[in-house]
Amino acid sequence: MKRELSAVEAKYEAQKIAFGPMYFQSVIALRDLGILQFIGDHRKGVSIDTIVEKLEASEYSVHLLLEAAEILGVVEMEEGIVRISKVGFFLLKDEMTRVNMNFMNDVCYLGAKNMTESFVNGKPEGLKTLGDWPTIYQGLSILPEPAKTSWFEFDHYYSDNAFPDALKIVFRKNPKLLFDIGGNTGKWSFACCDHDPNVRIKILDLPVQLKVAKANATEKKLLDRIDFHAIDLLDTAQKIPQGADVIWMSQFLDCFSKEQIVQILENACQAASENTTIFILEPFFDNQNYPAAHYSLVATSLYFTIMANGNSKMYRIGVMKELVEKAGLEVIETYPLIGDSYHTILECRKRRQA
Amino acid sequence: MKRELSAVEAKYEAQKIAFGPMYFQSVIALRDLGILQFIGDHRKGVSIDTIVEKLEASEYSVHLLLEAAEILGVVEMEEGIVRISKVGFFLLKDEMTRVNMNFMNDVCYLGAKNMTESFVNGKPEGLKTLGDWPTIYQGLSILPEPAKTSWFEFDHYYSDNAFPDALKIVFRKNPKLLFDIGGNTGKWSFACCDHDPNVRIKILDLPVQLKVAKANATEKKLLDRIDFHAIDLLDTAQKIPQGADVIWMSQFLDCFSKEQIVQILENACQAASENTTIFILEPFFDNQNYPAAHYSLVATSLYFTIMANGNSKMYRIGVMKELVEKAGLEVIETYPLIGDSYHTILECRKRRQA
Repeated sequence: MKRELSAVEAKYEAQKIAFGPMYFQSVIALRDLGILQFIGDHRKGVSIDTIVEKLEASEYSVHLLLEAAEILGVVEMEEGIVRISKVGFFLLKDEMTRVNMNFMNDVCYLGAKNMTESFVNGKPEGLKTLGDWPTIYQGLSILPEPAKTSWFEFDHYYSDNAFPDALKIVFRKNPKLLFDIGGNTGKWSFACCDHDPNVRIKILDLPVQLKVAKANATEKKLLDRIDFHAIDLLDTAQKIPQGADVIWMSQFLDCFSKEQIVQILENACQAASENTTIFILEPFFDNQNYPAAHYSLVATSLYFTIMANGNSKMYRIGVMKELVEKAGLEVIETYPLIGDSYHTILECRKRRQA
Repeated sequence: MKRELSAVEAKYEAQKIAFGPMYFQSVIALRDLGILQFIGDHRKGVSIDTIVEKLEASEYSVHLLLEAAEILGVVEMEEGIVRISKVGFFLLKDEMTRVNMNFMNDVCYLGAKNMTESFVNGKPEGLKTLGDWPTIYQGLSILPEPAKTSWFEFDHYYSDNAFPDALKIVFRKNPKLLFDIGGNTGKWSFACCDHDPNVRIKILDLPVQLKVAKANATEKKLLDRIDFHAIDLLDTAQKIPQGADVIWMSQFLDCFSKEQIVQILENACQAASENTTIFILEPFFDNQNYPAAHYSLVATSLYFTIMANGNSKMYRIGVMKELVEKAGLEVIETYPLIGDSYHTILECRKRRQA
């Protein structure tokens, strides 16, 4: 299916990699100086002279940034008339692209310089460009702007889209008690309470996270339906309690290495009865329906390396299924690509003895 | 000729821009951790497990970096066996690609974050990541490593390839006296002295540059053939002296804005007789014979913006010809794409009165 590249094409592709950061910043400048928007507002095209005349940007800026944008295919130029291209339109209007650009520039750009070091040390060595924490999770609530806004918009974009469809799947069998493992700020638990007035929830997470979740639950007057269980799942001595109808892990396992994932799933397995359903929601990078999504998710893995914790990543769906089996569970259903989201839900249960 | 992109393709292209810096750094890591070389050494392919086993890099590093490299088309993977692609081969072996990668990473990467600011202020606001100078030219000899090595390798790669063919063209009419405008360290002047034992040279440049050129000329025992003329060509009161058979400007005009270029060429025009030939050597970005070269030269313009001086750039050949005409000169011959170089020589002279 894939055509072999000629040497001339391969050399060009290599330069696209080599000057990727430079052209990225040229698009940021094209956007932040209002040039891209101005061109987008003139769908039939606008002359370069008009752009120079109407905008604050210097003639030098406009000419050079358009030369760069033309190479990237962000604009099309013909006889001094500039038009926005489809790629330019996505840069201007598409939410995924907007969120990715800002996340790259505001959260990851400077830290990415320390990528090799991060891999060598197994630590997010780029994080020091934002603050002095061992992982980004300790710093989230106090990130400097614009990193904070860009981080939360990115997180929101890739997480929340999954909720509506996920709720339908999880509540199909009317669970009475749901364990939200790695419940973080409680967003999923609150969505569950909203979805089903009878469900009760236990959020399991590190004490520092539970504090945030509890404060949020208090505000939402949900303390009678949600309780909290402090646990460090990297400590195998700490067991997940029994009794859940559903054990839910949403974008939680991708924070861990393969060995750690097996440990955590074994812990879930010992807590499960024959009637417990274990749901794993993850964006698997090889289970996407268009290449932009695959591309974004692998970039997100690299974000984990340099900024988040230095050792987690998005997984292939096949790898996760192997880890599930290894932990004594079995996948009984796969719900892929729910709606406009990037996620797949694996429905699992304790493997029955033969 | 260009096929219209589908929306899915355009969205993918937009993400390639958006995560360009992240993937750039992943290739740097792939290279610096020795993974790319190791794969290149096994042309028939090597298993991921073997890579993990033989190299220092962690399993996590190898898996994630290969996931990124596969998307970029740097490697090809089939059933756990990895092979280097043509693009990967260029990253590993091609001098242009090597020089561009290092220049991007060591000289420009951090400074590029200040691109918008550089355009707004007309100053190289990224330069502060390397040192405290108004332009990079004041800092060249004291740049911190590895920026210094990468800067000089880049400069060398794009300049020196042009010399052999340029000497043949310039010395066709046996000039006796050549003015080397913006002679910098004297490299071109020394090449001229070497090429023709009878030629005499006058290097015209800023006093600070002349000091370097003079020291180099002393070392090469060329003081009897080269003399030095201090001049600031942005000061229109300072005139280029008369008497040259050839006025030579090599990658000099691209350091200036269009208005300044006209001023400088007018200055050359007043110094020229009917028998003076004015040669302009420049890498015009639209006069290249493959797209990687065009791409690299526009990126070089952006380097001028963020790191060098904030206001110069590579030009289109048509624009330069217009400026030549505007200054009272005429282009009598164009020598494009000399050999393996990226340059074009414009041979000009004073326009004759009709």
